[in-house]
Amino acid sequence: MAPVKKGILERLNAGEVVIGDGGFVFALEKRGYVKAGPWTPEASVTHPEAMRQLQREFLRARSNVMQTFTFYASDDKLENRGNNLKLTGAQINEAACDLAREVANEGDALVAGGVSQTPSYLSCKSETEVRAIFKKQLDVFVRKNVDFLIAEYFEHVEEAEWAVQVLKTSGKPVAASLCIGPKGDMHGVSPGECAVRLVKAGAQIVGVNCHFDPMTCVETVKLMKEGVEKAGLKAHYMVQPLAFHTPDCNRQGFIDLPEFPFALEPRILTRWDMHKYAREAYKAGIRFIGGCCGFEPYHIRALAEELAPERGIIPAGSEKHGMWGSGLEMHTKPWVRARSRREYWEKILPASGRPKSASMSTPEGWGVTKGDAELLQHKEATTSQEMKHVLEVQKSKSTA
Amino acid sequence: MAPVKKGILERLNAGEVVIGDGGFVFALEKRGYVKAGPWTPEASVTHPEAMRQLQREFLRARSNVMQTFTFYASDDKLENRGNNLKLTGAQINEAACDLAREVANEGDALVAGGVSQTPSYLSCKSETEVRAIFKKQLDVFVRKNVDFLIAEYFEHVEEAEWAVQVLKTSGKPVAASLCIGPKGDMHGVSPGECAVRLVKAGAQIVGVNCHFDPMTCVETVKLMKEGVEKAGLKAHYMVQPLAFHTPDCNRQGFIDLPEFPFALEPRILTRWDMHKYAREAYKAGIRFIGGCCGFEPYHIRALAEELAPERGIIPAGSEKHGMWGSGLEMHTKPWVRARSRREYWEKILPASGRPKSASMSTPEGWGVTKGDAELLQHKEATTSQEMKHVLEVQKSKSTA
Amino acid sequence: MAPVKKGILERLNAGEVVIGDGGFVFALEKRGYVKAGPWTPEASVTHPEAMRQLQREFLRARSNVMQTFTFYASDDKLENRGNNLKLTGAQINEAACDLAREVANEGDALVAGGVSQTPSYLSCKSETEVRAIFKKQLDVFVRKNVDFLIAEYFEHVEEAEWAVQVLKTSGKPVAASLCIGPKGDMHGVSPGECAVRLVKAGAQIVGVNCHFDPMTCVETVKLMKEGVEKAGLKAHYMVQPLAFHTPDCNRQGFIDLPEFPFALEPRILTRWDMHKYAREAYKAGIRFIGGCCGFEPYHIRALAEELAPERGIIPAGSEKHGMWGSGLEMHTKPWVRARSRREYWEKILPASGRPKSASMSTPEGWGVTKGDAELLQHKEATTSQEMKHVLEVQKSKSTA
Amino acid sequence: MAPVKKGILERLNAGEVVIGDGGFVFALEKRGYVKAGPWTPEASVTHPEAMRQLQREFLRARSNVMQTFTFYASDDKLENRGNNLKLTGAQINEAACDLAREVANEGDALVAGGVSQTPSYLSCKSETEVRAIFKKQLDVFVRKNVDFLIAEYFEHVEEAEWAVQVLKTSGKPVAASLCIGPKGDMHGVSPGECAVRLVKAGAQIVGVNCHFDPMTCVETVKLMKEGVEKAGLKAHYMVQPLAFHTPDCNRQGFIDLPEFPFALEPRILTRWDMHKYAREAYKAGIRFIGGCCGFEPYHIRALAEELAPERGIIPAGSEKHGMWGSGLEMHTKPWVRARSRREYWEKILPASGRPKSASMSTPEGWGVTKGDAELLQHKEATTSQEMKHVLEVQKSKSTA
Repeated sequence: MAPVKKGILERLNAGEVVIGDGGFVFALEKRGYVKAGPWTPEASVTHPEAMRQLQREFLRARSNVMQTFTFYASDDKLENRGNNLKLTGAQINEAACDLAREVANEGDALVAGGVSQTPSYLSCKSETEVRAIFKKQLDVFVRKNVDFLIAEYFEHVEEAEWAVQVLKTSGKPVAASLCIGPKGDMHGVSPGECAVRLVKAGAQIVGVNCHFDPMTCVETVKLMKEGVEKAGLKAHYMVQPLAFHTPDCNRQGFIDLPEFPFALEPRILTRWDMHKYAREAYKAGIRFIGGCCGFEPYHIRALAEELAPERGIIPAGSEKHGMWGSGLEMHTKPWVRARSRREYWEKILPASGRPKSASMSTPEGWGVTKGDAELLQHKEATTSQEMKHVLEVQKSKSTA
Repeated sequence: MAPVKKGILERLNAGEVVIGDGGFVFALEKRGYVKAGPWTPEASVTHPEAMRQLQREFLRARSNVMQTFTFYASDDKLENRGNNLKLTGAQINEAACDLAREVANEGDALVAGGVSQTPSYLSCKSETEVRAIFKKQLDVFVRKNVDFLIAEYFEHVEEAEWAVQVLKTSGKPVAASLCIGPKGDMHGVSPGECAVRLVKAGAQIVGVNCHFDPMTCVETVKLMKEGVEKAGLKAHYMVQPLAFHTPDCNRQGFIDLPEFPFALEPRILTRWDMHKYAREAYKAGIRFIGGCCGFEPYHIRALAEELAPERGIIPAGSEKHGMWGSGLEMHTKPWVRARSRREYWEKILPASGRPKSASMSTPEGWGVTKGDAELLQHKEATTSQEMKHVLEVQKSKSTA
Repeated sequence: MAPVKKGILERLNAGEVVIGDGGFVFALEKRGYVKAGPWTPEASVTHPEAMRQLQREFLRARSNVMQTFTFYASDDKLENRGNNLKLTGAQINEAACDLAREVANEGDALVAGGVSQTPSYLSCKSETEVRAIFKKQLDVFVRKNVDFLIAEYFEHVEEAEWAVQVLKTSGKPVAASLCIGPKGDMHGVSPGECAVRLVKAGAQIVGVNCHFDPMTCVETVKLMKEGVEKAGLKAHYMVQPLAFHTPDCNRQGFIDLPEFPFALEPRILTRWDMHKYAREAYKAGIRFIGGCCGFEPYHIRALAEELAPERGIIPAGSEKHGMWGSGLEMHTKPWVRARSRREYWEKILPASGRPKSASMSTPEGWGVTKGDAELLQHKEATTSQEMKHVLEVQKSKSTA
Repeated sequence: MAPVKKGILERLNAGEVVIGDGGFVFALEKRGYVKAGPWTPEASVTHPEAMRQLQREFLRARSNVMQTFTFYASDDKLENRGNNLKLTGAQINEAACDLAREVANEGDALVAGGVSQTPSYLSCKSETEVRAIFKKQLDVFVRKNVDFLIAEYFEHVEEAEWAVQVLKTSGKPVAASLCIGPKGDMHGVSPGECAVRLVKAGAQIVGVNCHFDPMTCVETVKLMKEGVEKAGLKAHYMVQPLAFHTPDCNRQGFIDLPEFPFALEPRILTRWDMHKYAREAYKAGIRFIGGCCGFEPYHIRALAEELAPERGIIPAGSEKHGMWGSGLEMHTKPWVRARSRREYWEKILPASGRPKSASMSTPEGWGVTKGDAELLQHKEATTSQEMKHVLEVQKSKSTA
């Protein structure tokens, strides 16, 4: 039996750094177990060995949080995405809890049950219906006794508030994380105001995840922190960004980039980029530091290595990784040995190897390259109308 | 019990396409089980579940060859690399054979036992000593009854010839793969002449792996094929390149790039680059098509998807991957749905997201950035002398 | 004898577009008549034929303003720059007026006498001394009867105000142009406030020149216009930006870029970039549209071609330039003929031809590349102190 | 009266470095006197002051050769290009000789009369007709007593041979320069063989000009030199490349680049690139070193500054140009002063300032961007046929 672990709030209250885990959907898509587009998490049921292995790798990299792989695992989403496996949300949520617990028990990690934005909200179902969706997932998390809860990947703060309020009924600690950048949520609510509303709704930890690169996300959480402090409130802060460079994003983040989701490779952060991110997040006062889409185990390991002095522990996986490239000391080629130094890797600006590629894309115009504009004119019209409709309905609701 | 499978030569003689597997050391380094620098394969013994999972992912992507994870698993290499686990080469080679066989039995794949270049050769030990190293690994492969043998990752054709001759004593089919580019091996032997020598040494399949990007490798194998045909000989051809773009490499390939091995991310090939590679290799008459460092399961899946019409089978993993992005058809955002088309992805030139990076590096000067030149002046002198010595000794041996 | 021309204010009041001229110092540096570093304008005296020819080329491109080549032609500056020709400011200013008038008389252009920021101000001489410098130049302009006056290239709005007040004593129209970006002047005075102060000082035309690329300059003038309108004042607006792309600049503009001033070539705007700039400036309500450093005659011609519909005239030089590349219609190679279309050039994103260059520089750290940091540590200390001193003195003066 | 100058062969025989001039058509296009597309040189007649000024700037940069501005000044070309000025070739050729002589007399420069490839050859007129074209231009050069002759910008060695043979009848020294790269002329004749044929036809100086960047041109002349030496012949060598980086060119050089001719700005060489070119050309044994399209006076000045030690003279224009940026020593900003050093500029890899641009283009497919492919399908068909026809006729002629 596992020893009693310190809870998430105990850790954060004590000033400890908590390292999150990485991105399941992108990593498992590359390994062959998640489908890009639907992005739904049936793998916990259908391929538990693959999911367990990935989670173990994050644990080995010294993650303190095993999130349940329940992203988009609400019944309305599964249905919407053509759930041809006939798995219920409950089945998936349960299997995900069991796997997360199994791996968490192998080390110093907590289990966090997670809910995310729902198609019900986006299609303007009633508040009651949307809350019922979250409640259904929460029932499983309570039954499986997860350690704390995360409402994450919300583009609209209103829906996140509802989620937090539902999750709070469990009595467990609740974190809330929006997928927004410095310009705020899809209705234009600023990061500072979003954070205040989430804290007032009951979240003890607030922050952002996904959609933008690490430095942009840290910037956004800083704005949240300013807002919370200005309002005379208190909170802990979390950040779980993309592992992709996104200097050319607009409000909706990497989804609008022409490269999303199948040509993002040149944007992947190196482990050295991760060191900078971890340090910057720490300096900003953020103590729950993890990753989202694109984060592989070695990215989490880099966070843990950068913050090893603060945490007093180095990753188990670092037996297989010399800090700052020191493993190269025994490389056969002497000019490669010369790279076993911190200054070498700290300064590198890696070449793209792609002389026919630009360094920034043009996400305007729905993220479609200009050459496709004509072809898509009709589709766009539809799109704009759909989108306009959704936004208008949301607006009327939020101002009602 | 598994049914009797067609052997590698039966398949190639019948004109079938054989899909290889991907790169173990790079993938496992990112997952936390291999150390960059030594690059040795203790993981088969210490973390079999991690190795088994990776191999399964390649199988699921429709790889037909499960290579034993025995790269750099010769006793001289393990010793040289500070083998502090006190594992013998035999232990590692055996465990690797068992894992490969276990996974191969789960699908339509053969087990290939592999040997690679030795520190003994590079440090100018006698031919007898070098041959003994290969023989020791071969003994395990014979005992474990692998399906065929690969001598791969050789920079000097002479050492590869010795390896082929040793492996041939087993009576099993033998493939030989050099890590060279169009300029030939480290002594300047051209690809065509290398191939002729390997065929004469007994290899039934010849080709290249590692060190260069796919198109450069295909180009090199084409030169091999021309050489073999000009000499009136016959062979099958294989190619297992990097999954990194290397337009700026010189003779020693990606090892000389300043980004090797910890900042290669921007060079990673997309799945669409892989389609082009698979088609080009096929058109060049190569029928054993796989990958080396950088190849993740989704890269192998892309090869299998491109060649699905020729092979008549699509990858098991494609249940989680729509061809040419078709999985995006059900994405929430309509402008992302618009990307579910072959023409969209075929034409994309993905931005690097790195405006402060160049698109090519300067590998000359031992791959050290100019800013470091001064610091390394002493080391380089040593290096040059060492290297010169090694090359001279080799030369005298090969012309003796 | 030349007919009486409409004055600058008559034109602007009538809503006409006035096209400025291009950059003398950069163009003449490349032609061999101005020295980079000092940037002083002795050429009007020493090589009048070179200066006349350049001015004629701008006229031929349909510039309506021949600025006197009197940038940095104050006595204090000439002395400071090691004036080894022993030319007085008055000599240079007079020669410049004569040349400008000679060429202006050949077409529809006005002569504008110009003063720019002084070393006296930067080294904290008294207001009286600084005003005397401007007065001395003004005396020449009045004697030579220029058509209007421009106080341009000021980093500190305070000095520009003094200049405007001095120039106003002549009774001639006065324009004031700062070399600032959206972040304001060197003391942090915002563009809007700068503009208000200049209008209050008596300038009828306000705007910016130099230091930033066209789009950034237009953006800055927009902020000025907002400020002026908010204050209930009225003015005309002018913009004369760099012909270099500067997406990576900080407050001091292109001077901080590592490439300044001898490696800016890859940043030079194409004529098509100029079309976009002219249109954007026009849309922003700016009617005095010209150029500064980097603008060659063909850049000015492109402005005039873009705004030909609004002005009703096309450049004389366009007899040698088909609009939108139409001159290619008779090219020998048919695939070059295919480029004689507006859509072709409008969409082009020209490759740099420099795979080893990044697309953005790092101007932080005084614009010195990191490799030089150590070498310059001492110099920087000096620099910082000098700079700090200057800023502090200025600050105390401006708040006194 | 000017003193008797040493002739071109006397200089080269004595081992002197001869600096050529820059590119007239590109420089004058930007100044407003030449039309891109036709590229014909009426300006010598219509705007002699502009032409004289440009030539003077090259002289001031220490050019030793004033080429007559007679590129494309044959009657057949002028007619073909819609000569609406009704100027005869003779008028233009005469005016060009007078201007070149006037400026040459102001310094240490020779006048070189030049002929270039003809539309008559490309449209398969008879050898007699083509020779007559050259003879007509030669008659003017002889009458005006130029110092030597250059047959330049030939894509087909055969036509260049005819030109050399005609020019040789004058008894004046003859140079021959092809616009080819390392792959040889348009019929695939190698640089070595081209050079041999030109020397046998009577050229005392052979080399290349235009179409490729400096390093590629130097490489090509090296191949010519090898060929000439292998054949046991003797010659002097010349090189007059583009001032544009063209790493992405195929056989027809920069004309195939999508950026030709109106978006080449990012490719312009810096003065520091010119230093490297001058040194490399000198090391290759080339002694007539100049420039073609894109070369502005400051580019020629850089060649002269790099080779000042060998020549014992520095450019007149260098009174306005500190070597290696030393003019910055007196810059106001101390961090700019820090750039007044050779090591700073020698190492700079200038950023493009264009994050949405790639570093290489795709010239294949007739240099047309893929998006235009459809539109041009019909035109291309025509083109291919035309081109095929021309090549076939040429081939039959050259093998007859």
